Amino acid sequence: MYGCVTRYGKYVCQILSEPGFKMSATGLVLARGGSKGIKNKNIVLLNSRPLLLRCLQVMHEAGCFSSIWVSTDDEKIAECAKNGGAKVHHRAKYTAVDEASSLCAVQEFLQHHTEISIVCVVQCTSPFLQARYLHKGMEKIQSGYDSVFSVTRRHLLRWSEGELTYPQNFNPRHRPQRQDWVGELYENGMFYFCKVNLVHQGLLQGGRCGYIEVPLCESLDIDSPFDIIVAQTWINYCQQEERQHSL
Amino acid sequence: MYGCVTRYGKYVCQILSEPGFKMSATGLVLARGGSKGIKNKNIVLLNSRPLLLRCLQVMHEAGCFSSIWVSTDDEKIAECAKNGGAKVHHRAKYTAVDEASSLCAVQEFLQHHTEISIVCVVQCTSPFLQARYLHKGMEKIQSGYDSVFSVTRRHLLRWSEGELTYPQNFNPRHRPQRQDWVGELYENGMFYFCKVNLVHQGLLQGGRCGYIEVPLCESLDIDSPFDIIVAQTWINYCQQEERQHSL
Repeated sequence: MYGCVTRYGKYVCQILSEPGFKMSATGLVLARGGSKGIKNKNIVLLNSRPLLLRCLQVMHEAGCFSSIWVSTDDEKIAECAKNGGAKVHHRAKYTAVDEASSLCAVQEFLQHHTEISIVCVVQCTSPFLQARYLHKGMEKIQSGYDSVFSVTRRHLLRWSEGELTYPQNFNPRHRPQRQDWVGELYENGMFYFCKVNLVHQGLLQGGRCGYIEVPLCESLDIDSPFDIIVAQTWINYCQQEERQHSL
Repeated sequence: MYGCVTRYGKYVCQILSEPGFKMSATGLVLARGGSKGIKNKNIVLLNSRPLLLRCLQVMHEAGCFSSIWVSTDDEKIAECAKNGGAKVHHRAKYTAVDEASSLCAVQEFLQHHTEISIVCVVQCTSPFLQARYLHKGMEKIQSGYDSVFSVTRRHLLRWSEGELTYPQNFNPRHRPQRQDWVGELYENGMFYFCKVNLVHQGLLQGGRCGYIEVPLCESLDIDSPFDIIVAQTWINYCQQEERQHSL
């Protein structure tokens, strides 16, 4: 489906030489070893490929990054990163604990890479990331946005918390039919493009802030063993549908 | 796992004779035949049992309904309803079209059953409905609520729609960690207890309105062929976990 490591270089160069991409962004995957819930979550296998490797392949394919880095404290992950054609940043321990935020880890990475002006943090536990979403994100950054991240549109009815509850986003006398309501936008964590001056101000989202919409069925985030099963089931289902359509 | 049809009668009587349940509620499943997306969605098989049958079994088990009805326009569904120990309401055609709301179908049902004072609409496409949730709902109604329905707590970050986007339920400078944020409540469609006077006013939710919380992993609603696969996968996973724990 994707090219091999030796082909990435060529592919990236081809795309970057298009007139469309004059700005330079660095792709960054934060992948520490000590994940809760699933052991070694970032390199767990999906369709026989580690999540991190899948993610790096899509990032290469997107062709919008001048360099791709994995920030980690784990040797196995570092090895996988190199196999996926990424550079390895050996992150400081204080950024690799449960309490540390992604922002903190990005700031620490940037301290060592002062040449970077745009960073894109990509979450490798979003297995249905597509190159075209990253591409669209980069286009938005280039058109003047300071930060761009991925969202999912959902049609969810919200209610207040308490002894009595009240509707928050609709009128129960006129319950919205799905086809008559655009729904609402929810951050899905898949990726965050951000100009570095914002990161220095303590933000991954701010300034002229835009979004890229990703369909719900591609927004799954792997957070539990069950999510892996769902993701694998979804892949098998899609492959089966593809086979049926090609008959 | 559940009793057979002949046992339901006994079970229901035992529970209803407890001092806890002096009020009488009617359980109602709206299950029309012409469902979009999945053909015959309401009687699609999950673990070899039709969704409707699973639902009716749980409703019987809950022991909080003086009678259980299925409102349908479809003969197969009517047959399944009878097999599940429910009475069949042959609904008017105008309530069984895509545009008709659940409220409309409940109102039509109640026109034929003027003796009912509390109705509980149960969605048979929520395959992980548990008797204890219905039981809790009935307890709330009995304690003085006019309507009670099921919700799911989610930790989702919302953003506004438009050329630029702004956070709606958090501060990006202090992104909430999951453990420090209670999240928000979302209707999950599993069930709606409601006093009939509210239904006459055009509402399934209103008056002293309360909720019952259902965990996210049990809130799945079957709406696409893939949902069936996910539900079956989840059931298999749980059964496997149970077997491992019992070894």
